Amino acid sequence: MAVAPLFFVLYQRVVAPRYAPKPGAAGPSDAIEHGERSVIIAGFGRFGHIVGRVLQVNGFEATVLDLDPTQVDTIRRLGMKVFYGDATRLELLQAAGAARARLFVLAIDDEERSLVLAETVRKHFPNLTILARAVGRIHAYRLLRVGVTSIYRETLDSSLAMSVEALRRLGVRGYEATRAARRFRDHDERAVRALADLWDKDEEIYFSEARRQVVAVEQMFSQDRRELHGERDEAWDPPGQKKEA
Amino acid sequence: MAVAPLFFVLYQRVVAPRYAPKPGAAGPSDAIEHGERSVIIAGFGRFGHIVGRVLQVNGFEATVLDLDPTQVDTIRRLGMKVFYGDATRLELLQAAGAARARLFVLAIDDEERSLVLAETVRKHFPNLTILARAVGRIHAYRLLRVGVTSIYRETLDSSLAMSVEALRRLGVRGYEATRAARRFRDHDERAVRALADLWDKDEEIYFSEARRQVVAVEQMFSQDRRELHGERDEAWDPPGQKKEA
Repeated sequence: MAVAPLFFVLYQRVVAPRYAPKPGAAGPSDAIEHGERSVIIAGFGRFGHIVGRVLQVNGFEATVLDLDPTQVDTIRRLGMKVFYGDATRLELLQAAGAARARLFVLAIDDEERSLVLAETVRKHFPNLTILARAVGRIHAYRLLRVGVTSIYRETLDSSLAMSVEALRRLGVRGYEATRAARRFRDHDERAVRALADLWDKDEEIYFSEARRQVVAVEQMFSQDRRELHGERDEAWDPPGQKKEA
Repeated sequence: MAVAPLFFVLYQRVVAPRYAPKPGAAGPSDAIEHGERSVIIAGFGRFGHIVGRVLQVNGFEATVLDLDPTQVDTIRRLGMKVFYGDATRLELLQAAGAARARLFVLAIDDEERSLVLAETVRKHFPNLTILARAVGRIHAYRLLRVGVTSIYRETLDSSLAMSVEALRRLGVRGYEATRAARRFRDHDERAVRALADLWDKDEEIYFSEARRQVVAVEQMFSQDRRELHGERDEAWDPPGQKKEA
């Protein structure tokens, strides 16, 4: 059993039967009938399906756009309206109700298609809020460039969750470990925003700014550790270097 | 600029110069000199490098195993001991100090190699704690099978972080949205553990258990919403269905 199809096998056999549509229920080509179905999810793989299910168990339903025609029935039986096809096509976005939606979840895993879709949504539905998945930093820079501001780098939070556990196993208290990861994340997010306009322009300026960001995060943690432990850490605070109190 | 190499360009140009080794500092083939370097990180891509940097800014140094020979100098200049080669080779694990390490961060992105490495570490260093990155559910099942218990599915936490933001944008209060994601995650983790022994054995039993898990998470959230809002939600609690108080 390969990884990707398992979601759909699970849905088809397990989740979907619980939401089997009543006879005569609306099919995929019908108009959206009620305002609550106000979330559009583009891409229903590992990432999008978690967002869809969390919304669903909390009482919010979504319209799903996916490229894979074999999944249409399965997703539909989940109680989700589904539109098969290329989500970057304006007609499909219009049919899915993008003009009335409150939220657009951009969860496709292909970086180039994700950017085209972000641009299309920004251009034709400028008031629609986009929450976007990004592969990594460069994808995040490019999404920021086209005006998307809520960006989730796809492996960042799991790597930080593991970091918290690693710190705890090394003897750091739970509260401190969680705080360290949150501060690292906040700083890293600010760095991505600061660097987004620079990365493909002047290389020297980009790396100079990146260097400034790295120094800033080191100083922040060094300061934290001094405050928490009264510790003088040579590696972070060499004797020759004058520091502000 | 491609996505993967950017980390290394950043390190080479930005992070690494801050940790340039002193003349005469230990090279990669030297023995580990002090006990603090007690974390081994296998795989220094998007995932492993975040764990490495969080540990580093918190005062813990790591030994890195990576397949890419061009990165050896860069990672070494980060202050990290680095061993180039196939981390599944016992000699490399021994040279990296696996017998004395406190923590093994298994962050390589290839599912099959990750499993071979997990088995090798479990067999030869049974007391070494492994924290493992998983691609998805199946990879998590397989890691559990070989005795790894701390598993981080690589996109799970970022998709949940986006889910929290989606709920908030839809009007759910921040505290409730965070709690919903945490509960969904806890439940999903329990489900993965419950299903790990079943997925490739009897299909009927697997899907029956998976179905039970889906019902359980629905009921948990349905109950939550009734308690929080005194709401009777038809979709979750059909009139004909008898419920326990």
